[in-house]
Amino acid sequence: MKIEVIGLRVDREFREGDDVAKAIVEAAASNNVSIRDGDVIVVTHKVVSKAEGRVVDLRNIKPSSRALEIAEKLGKDPRLVEVILRESREVLKCESGHLITMTRHGIVCANSGVDQSNSGGVDRVILLPVDPDESARRIREGVEKLTGARVAVVITDTQGRPFREGVVNIAIGFSGMNPFRDYRGVRDRCGYELKITVVNIVDEIAATAELLMGQASESTPFVIIRGLRYEYSLDYGLRDILMERGKWLFK
Amino acid sequence: MKIEVIGLRVDREFREGDDVAKAIVEAAASNNVSIRDGDVIVVTHKVVSKAEGRVVDLRNIKPSSRALEIAEKLGKDPRLVEVILRESREVLKCESGHLITMTRHGIVCANSGVDQSNSGGVDRVILLPVDPDESARRIREGVEKLTGARVAVVITDTQGRPFREGVVNIAIGFSGMNPFRDYRGVRDRCGYELKITVVNIVDEIAATAELLMGQASESTPFVIIRGLRYEYSLDYGLRDILMERGKWLFK
Repeated sequence: MKIEVIGLRVDREFREGDDVAKAIVEAAASNNVSIRDGDVIVVTHKVVSKAEGRVVDLRNIKPSSRALEIAEKLGKDPRLVEVILRESREVLKCESGHLITMTRHGIVCANSGVDQSNSGGVDRVILLPVDPDESARRIREGVEKLTGARVAVVITDTQGRPFREGVVNIAIGFSGMNPFRDYRGVRDRCGYELKITVVNIVDEIAATAELLMGQASESTPFVIIRGLRYEYSLDYGLRDILMERGKWLFK
Repeated sequence: MKIEVIGLRVDREFREGDDVAKAIVEAAASNNVSIRDGDVIVVTHKVVSKAEGRVVDLRNIKPSSRALEIAEKLGKDPRLVEVILRESREVLKCESGHLITMTRHGIVCANSGVDQSNSGGVDRVILLPVDPDESARRIREGVEKLTGARVAVVITDTQGRPFREGVVNIAIGFSGMNPFRDYRGVRDRCGYELKITVVNIVDEIAATAELLMGQASESTPFVIIRGLRYEYSLDYGLRDILMERGKWLFK
């Protein structure tokens, strides 16, 4: 019983207008990997964001008075704070140098996912894709068209977590799979019905891929997970893996 | 560039006094896998807990008045609540049917990690190991002695998270590795120093292993991660991956 995690090295930068599906298929070819039915293709959001033109030059940003105030409090660049606020639906925490928001997609994370590393310049920042599920769908359909294989696509970002040190990679959008393994009603060896019932495998897939992606460059933006059992489905999206606000225990 | 994730099927129950290291080596042999230098061996805590006798029969538990009160509020078995309280250092949340505690180890999780599934009977519950790092160390040394290979060992549990649906597998103890990949001071392709600096790879390893472990039974309690680059070290433990209380943003 084995899963293979295959990193696809890419020696190029990504630019607005690039076809990510084509880049994946080309990367597979140049890495001597053929994409197969059932493969899960994990893509770091940075290349997706760049291809979609989701890069902002801070020199063109005029911070609002609210951004100036928050920047002062946190010791951050006010132009960066302005971009973070524009990407957010709501500020949840603004203390100890941290700006935790709920993004327009509903993701709770630091800085609305806005990132300065690998952005192509000190004054340039990368935003999350506008609709990561839609990005994943387009990439999946592109790869399927080019290869004839039926695949799932997961777009990821590395994020911090309450209570635990270090960031981990999580899913911010996906297409072609049920993100959960559902054990409701399943009985264990003793006939006891399982209480921990729903495993978020799409976040586990993201974490798995990060072990090969690393952080320091775009050299491994694509990772194939091969041999994983999952349910093919087009019925799920990011909304399903984000907890509704009414269920939050920590605020 | 490839990582292999190899599940070791085991067709047995675990009991107090069992030698987990020996069980891993036997499972590897019966699955035609030879353990190699650099392998990370991931172990679900349930077999460790059982081998260490960390199983409680609720029929022997007399709930305190505090346990009775919390059980009433949450609609839980008061004997189970009593066990959860005994395993905890502090109750953090007690609402909407959820009992979130900080365990004696400092882990923030539901029910102090006490679990009824796969416990060997409806009235029996499994606790987390008393000292999961020490358990990991013993298992690592046992495997190294039996095989001559130098390995790392990670002990895991599936846990829920604030803001995201579904549980994921995380590390609750480990031995033989640096749990982080540290990018502090590393520059990206544009010379920009990376801000997201420390990745928690031991939690990502746990998540990876879960994709093969599943939840429903003990049939795959051991998973080998092969081909992963990590730093060998004996200097780290659970304390390093738990965020200090002073840094918590959500309460």
